[in-house]
Amino acid sequence: MAKNDWGFTQYPLIPGHEIVGEVTEIGSKVEKVKVGDKVGVGCLVGSCRQCDQCTSDLENYCPKVIWTYGSVYTDGTLAHGGYSNLMVVDEHFIVLWPENFPLDIGSPLLCAGITTYSPLRYFGLDKPGMNIGVVGLGGLGHVAVKFAKAFGTKVTVISTSINKKKEAIEKLGADSFLVSRDPEEMKVRGIRIPSFFFFFFIIIIFFFLNILLRHETKLISTIVSVQVAAGTLDGIIDTVSATHPLLALISLLKPHGKMVLVGAPAQPLELPVFPLISGRKIIAGSGVGGMKETQEMIDFAAKHNILPDVEIIPIDYINTAMDRLAKSDVKYRFVIDIAKSLKAE
Amino acid sequence: MAKNDWGFTQYPLIPGHEIVGEVTEIGSKVEKVKVGDKVGVGCLVGSCRQCDQCTSDLENYCPKVIWTYGSVYTDGTLAHGGYSNLMVVDEHFIVLWPENFPLDIGSPLLCAGITTYSPLRYFGLDKPGMNIGVVGLGGLGHVAVKFAKAFGTKVTVISTSINKKKEAIEKLGADSFLVSRDPEEMKVRGIRIPSFFFFFFIIIIFFFLNILLRHETKLISTIVSVQVAAGTLDGIIDTVSATHPLLALISLLKPHGKMVLVGAPAQPLELPVFPLISGRKIIAGSGVGGMKETQEMIDFAAKHNILPDVEIIPIDYINTAMDRLAKSDVKYRFVIDIAKSLKAE
Repeated sequence: MAKNDWGFTQYPLIPGHEIVGEVTEIGSKVEKVKVGDKVGVGCLVGSCRQCDQCTSDLENYCPKVIWTYGSVYTDGTLAHGGYSNLMVVDEHFIVLWPENFPLDIGSPLLCAGITTYSPLRYFGLDKPGMNIGVVGLGGLGHVAVKFAKAFGTKVTVISTSINKKKEAIEKLGADSFLVSRDPEEMKVRGIRIPSFFFFFFIIIIFFFLNILLRHETKLISTIVSVQVAAGTLDGIIDTVSATHPLLALISLLKPHGKMVLVGAPAQPLELPVFPLISGRKIIAGSGVGGMKETQEMIDFAAKHNILPDVEIIPIDYINTAMDRLAKSDVKYRFVIDIAKSLKAE
Repeated sequence: MAKNDWGFTQYPLIPGHEIVGEVTEIGSKVEKVKVGDKVGVGCLVGSCRQCDQCTSDLENYCPKVIWTYGSVYTDGTLAHGGYSNLMVVDEHFIVLWPENFPLDIGSPLLCAGITTYSPLRYFGLDKPGMNIGVVGLGGLGHVAVKFAKAFGTKVTVISTSINKKKEAIEKLGADSFLVSRDPEEMKVRGIRIPSFFFFFFIIIIFFFLNILLRHETKLISTIVSVQVAAGTLDGIIDTVSATHPLLALISLLKPHGKMVLVGAPAQPLELPVFPLISGRKIIAGSGVGGMKETQEMIDFAAKHNILPDVEIIPIDYINTAMDRLAKSDVKYRFVIDIAKSLKAE
């Protein structure tokens, strides 16, 4: 948004949408909070409150939703986000912060948390014993792993980088790890194979693996890792917002499996249709969550001690942080401590 | 399949997979039918009978499914289809034909019927009063309209050709008709617009329509027809097997709407991700149905007098029929009367 990568940023822009703080002042009709309460604001600060979505506690899908920053308020002013020492927000769009739950570390749950919690719930991917894949191990992905584990599912992290294996399994508690193959190779090899031949293709791969497995070249290990798990996942939360191939991911799903896209690539993805049809599989999108579910998520996180891994920074570090972010050089979210930054001045 | 358009045909090929006839001989252990019974065979003639899919009456999703033609039997021979005077088939894969239900006209239900009936049921798109879209008015589409109407839904036919409007509404009973815009135009204009800006885009279109509508040029009427219905459909059955753009179709869905692809384009489709995320929409695939559901479908069709529209031909017309099929010059399925063809010789 800051760099207008999606092409619809309106400047001036004040970013920031996983915001926590203390109530300092309330309007005369406010009932939900009092001065001194700890609260959070996530991705949305307004909606029509009357449509089917709003009356179903799905304000995030209201056609008139006002996003926390970059949207236009009903009075025509631009909504500004959390890179600020103050914020005014309608009480309906406030999340009550659980007691003894850390404000700074917990704040990314307000977007990364609800973005992954909501599809796991809505698409029924929260049943103990299910096999869940998480594609991409960044701000969203690492929280998805934690929620999926808290639901009692077996979690497979799928990443392009073998370097994340140790972190995924030892630190985040994932049960297994797959290296997705080189995107270009997947594109060339995968997309045009009809799915019911893909099955035979996998058998052939296995045949060769029996011969080649002992050599443990990197190439082989990456092919193994994706193919071994074909047809084993009940669902996938795909957090990748870069353009990426879907075929190998779809092949990881069991019949009737569900893949939910929560990252938003700016360009369309290539959708192979045969593999969807031959397994009655689903590709869905999911975007954050409504206020009721966001409160439910934060309460669940507090109860199960689910906290994102963050690096807390002062505001004057933000440009460096943005550069590092562009290089994925953060585990996994930067959190700006505005109060401390101001105090230090 | 006959022309190897999908690239995996094995010759010699005997096509034909919506097959009806009379039982002339049975094996000693056959219990389901007796000589003289009228029966049908659809898209599959075998499966492993042991996997999760098979034991859930979803033999069509068994990884070892044997399709009626073009598949390899467990003994290594090729399965041959219904362009024949005889067929041997395992009783499990036989559909009992309802009494007084016409064999010839009804036969396309064994593929076209179950292909459209199954997703309407599985994805919950069979509730009276729902708004259902059917994309493409061919062999699959016209049967989808009939089932959707029988379920009590309101049906919108979406086609590239305005010429099909009268047929769709007056003959097939659809409630409304949309002309999808020129595919190339949709591709250029649509795919890269973020969905929550798409909403404003529609408002702007409406604004211009207020000015331009009186001129009733073809261009305007086609734009109107798609845009008016944006966000109104609970589900879409997309029967088109040519490459086609998805964005405008996705925009027709309500939030949480479901689009089911039952046509199988050989090339991947372009999937815009933003519109899925902003409305938690689903794109799914669905392929025919299991034996239990196929029997249920044919009984439902008999009860509600749902019959495809067909043109019955002798076998020696087949090459002409194939050429006409390639030009979509049939309403809507050719049915070959083998018995009559042989009698005539």
